[in-house]
Amino acid sequence: MMQPSIASNTSVSPLTGTTYEIPQQLDDRRNIDDFLSGHPGKPVVVVQGLGFVGAVMALVCANALTEEYAVLGIELPTSYTFWKIQSINDGVFPVVAADKKVDEFHRKALEKHNLFATYDPYAYSKADVIIIDVNLDVQKDLKSDGELLCYDVDLTNFRKAIEAVGNHCNEDVLILVETTVPPGTCQMIVKPIITECLSKRGLAVDKFRLGHSYERVMPGPDYVDSIQNFFRVYSGIDDVSALATERFLRTIVSTEQYPLTRLGSTSATEMAKVLENSFRAMNIAFMVEWSRFAEEAGVNLYEVVAAIRMRPTHRNIMLPGIGVGGYCLTKDPLLASWARQHLFQSGEGLSESEQGVRINDKMPVYAYEFLKKWIGPGSLAGSRVLLLGVSYRSDVGDTRYSPVERFFDCLIADGCEVLLHDYYVNFWEETRRTVSSDYEAFFADRLDIIVITTAHSGYTSSARLIKLILQQEPLFILDTVGLLSEHEIDLLSQKHRVRVIGRGDLT
Amino acid sequence: MMQPSIASNTSVSPLTGTTYEIPQQLDDRRNIDDFLSGHPGKPVVVVQGLGFVGAVMALVCANALTEEYAVLGIELPTSYTFWKIQSINDGVFPVVAADKKVDEFHRKALEKHNLFATYDPYAYSKADVIIIDVNLDVQKDLKSDGELLCYDVDLTNFRKAIEAVGNHCNEDVLILVETTVPPGTCQMIVKPIITECLSKRGLAVDKFRLGHSYERVMPGPDYVDSIQNFFRVYSGIDDVSALATERFLRTIVSTEQYPLTRLGSTSATEMAKVLENSFRAMNIAFMVEWSRFAEEAGVNLYEVVAAIRMRPTHRNIMLPGIGVGGYCLTKDPLLASWARQHLFQSGEGLSESEQGVRINDKMPVYAYEFLKKWIGPGSLAGSRVLLLGVSYRSDVGDTRYSPVERFFDCLIADGCEVLLHDYYVNFWEETRRTVSSDYEAFFADRLDIIVITTAHSGYTSSARLIKLILQQEPLFILDTVGLLSEHEIDLLSQKHRVRVIGRGDLT
Repeated sequence: MMQPSIASNTSVSPLTGTTYEIPQQLDDRRNIDDFLSGHPGKPVVVVQGLGFVGAVMALVCANALTEEYAVLGIELPTSYTFWKIQSINDGVFPVVAADKKVDEFHRKALEKHNLFATYDPYAYSKADVIIIDVNLDVQKDLKSDGELLCYDVDLTNFRKAIEAVGNHCNEDVLILVETTVPPGTCQMIVKPIITECLSKRGLAVDKFRLGHSYERVMPGPDYVDSIQNFFRVYSGIDDVSALATERFLRTIVSTEQYPLTRLGSTSATEMAKVLENSFRAMNIAFMVEWSRFAEEAGVNLYEVVAAIRMRPTHRNIMLPGIGVGGYCLTKDPLLASWARQHLFQSGEGLSESEQGVRINDKMPVYAYEFLKKWIGPGSLAGSRVLLLGVSYRSDVGDTRYSPVERFFDCLIADGCEVLLHDYYVNFWEETRRTVSSDYEAFFADRLDIIVITTAHSGYTSSARLIKLILQQEPLFILDTVGLLSEHEIDLLSQKHRVRVIGRGDLT
Repeated sequence: MMQPSIASNTSVSPLTGTTYEIPQQLDDRRNIDDFLSGHPGKPVVVVQGLGFVGAVMALVCANALTEEYAVLGIELPTSYTFWKIQSINDGVFPVVAADKKVDEFHRKALEKHNLFATYDPYAYSKADVIIIDVNLDVQKDLKSDGELLCYDVDLTNFRKAIEAVGNHCNEDVLILVETTVPPGTCQMIVKPIITECLSKRGLAVDKFRLGHSYERVMPGPDYVDSIQNFFRVYSGIDDVSALATERFLRTIVSTEQYPLTRLGSTSATEMAKVLENSFRAMNIAFMVEWSRFAEEAGVNLYEVVAAIRMRPTHRNIMLPGIGVGGYCLTKDPLLASWARQHLFQSGEGLSESEQGVRINDKMPVYAYEFLKKWIGPGSLAGSRVLLLGVSYRSDVGDTRYSPVERFFDCLIADGCEVLLHDYYVNFWEETRRTVSSDYEAFFADRLDIIVITTAHSGYTSSARLIKLILQQEPLFILDTVGLLSEHEIDLLSQKHRVRVIGRGDLT
């Protein structure tokens, strides 16, 4: 609906369209002091970064299980991010989430007045606990076919974020890093920065505590529970830090049901996070060549995978699809590989895990080539193509590094008219395109191609969707996520041409 | 204890030392007829191949759940295999197994007289069901450092085995292939051979039924249950074949608890099996570079993996170790890759899955190099080295393609005196060495190095083992499977030098 304008002194919410003025004078001290004066004696938690993780983390802290916190959220006052601050203070959560608990927690926090968002680093000076939830990105350079040419990890912004903390925090603060970082970062980067900042300010450098505990946040229907009711792994740069971290986590995580796991060093927990995600990315990459083989051998790989998943030890074998997206699986293996080379000066990176990323990066272009080859000679220019789903993952409104993006780019480059549907996204930031949450209107005109690009449960066994498709003139339907049932494929095939990536028994 | 002699007219049981004469006249018809005359009207099941799978399959069929079968087991009358035939008929199961059910099933079958083993293909002519459990090997050419130079799939023996069936079977037999085969084999190899043989014999070629259902046999404590009480995937070359296969499987598998899964084609089930094992092999290979990284970063990878395994979706992440062994994971990815290239004429194999095998193949040599580097300059010649475990897997007496073999070869090549212990192996066929199931005697003399090479549960928290080690003069202990607990490491480190592969925090 609304296309945010990019003016440096305003910031537009893509959720509500509201335009917020970014103040000329960046001084929010009075509001912070006012807010805190309402919570005398309560420990103050500051969450740095109000993205997918930090925003919900702030809610969870404001609704802690066994402690009453005053919670301050901090985000940068840029045109891209300032609206998040205002949105939180206005009671509109800055992420579209299927999880009802998000609004419930937000409402409760506003009622209790124990959550306030700001841009002013002054907040750090009031903190007992500072949670680092800023991004640490990998710069990837991909060719048009998805091939990873090179990548780099630029720590500049991350260092700046840590310096902002060090320049304002108390000497006995607990800093809890949740950001996914290259293994070794807390010891080799965060600790030295904080030490240096405190030292410059004439403060003690042996009193702060520094812990690492990675999040496993999933911005879907269990968004809140992915923090409050899920397993946590943590560590500290020393025993005191680990204990302080544990004590804090016990106040926000249901640790009786989901016991905490302490590891021996921050490098260990940092490694656990990127290893976890590399394992997942690798398992997906592994399936890619098998899906090609299945297509050649006339085998339905979806039924093969379903059969294999009967085995408890093989339940997490992945399905073929359009590609891998999201903030973690697309970069974490590279973070780790970079750390091995640049922080631990090993002569080699993690080439297998890097290879996993490389393979996955190429999947959307493969899917597009598959479509073109199937449709046959001739240009796709002018074709009316409906994409069902732009999120990178089912039942989530998260388009970060969505594989659908490159697939979309290919269609646009070839001159297609592309229509976008998603239940959870109304503005696709990365492509700056609006997305409809109702596909009805798209079916009013003739469609040439429908591509199922995200396995949202709304598309599964949807009689309405099937009916609309059946009313269309013969068209091409490409299912890139194996969502259509045998029955639906049979039904649709009576009129249309249907293909599913990863199965070769359809003609 | 006993080293079987290799004379062409005798065959020695490595289990009992008994020498069996191989008959000059290979004619067992009278015995077969005698045996079957005791079971009038019963369906006859013939199991081709009495290895780790076929031997126990014969027992399971002889103790079928809902049918009374007369079961014939067939093995070749070579000096390597003839003893298995006699051993089964003498009541000694030809595989050392921790599973008590094996002996129980064997005893019952002998009591019922419904199991008889033979070498004579005449048996096939009596069969209602023929189960193919012969080996299909991959010929791998490895360099001394474990690098896979090339490999080949030679179907000659497999074809011969199928021809033996085709030359004797009835035209309406059910042939059930359980052997792990390259995807496409039943359709492209087995079916044409049987058709041709029947045709040559003037029999109908449209009456035989051909099914594929891969086994998931694990020769450990659940050896029998890995057939009788486990999930099964099956298929047929046509509907009638699939139904006949299903009907048979229902008589031997507890299908109420472990429902059968039917797939659309034999290529699909063939692919499922090799995909399953490739997934496993890949998951292990994936950990290799991470274990190196963990060593460099001073991280205990075992605790990291334990933390990751808390996540239900990551429970099957593997541990680093000495390598990958066994009959399946070392070859199945290659079978699949070969099939893609040679049966489906794809321009490419499955390079990622091949890479998994390549990485795993190098692990034992890496473990050995790790040991040498750790011990420091100087030769290992003359060192007295105790290996705890020669099996490829914990609590199993199975040395096929055990990674310990190459590690052992390295020690021998460097002039070490190597002592071998295993609870489940008393003769190590591949190296033709005896193995003790009691380590006590080895500790009578000074030891220089102890390497834990298999994670048998007998070694876990064994106070006796720890006590014996502590009584030794200072020595080197390399744990290649992460078996030692923190406490044991602390205890042993007071006197000895201890290292665990995959963790870098021990010095």
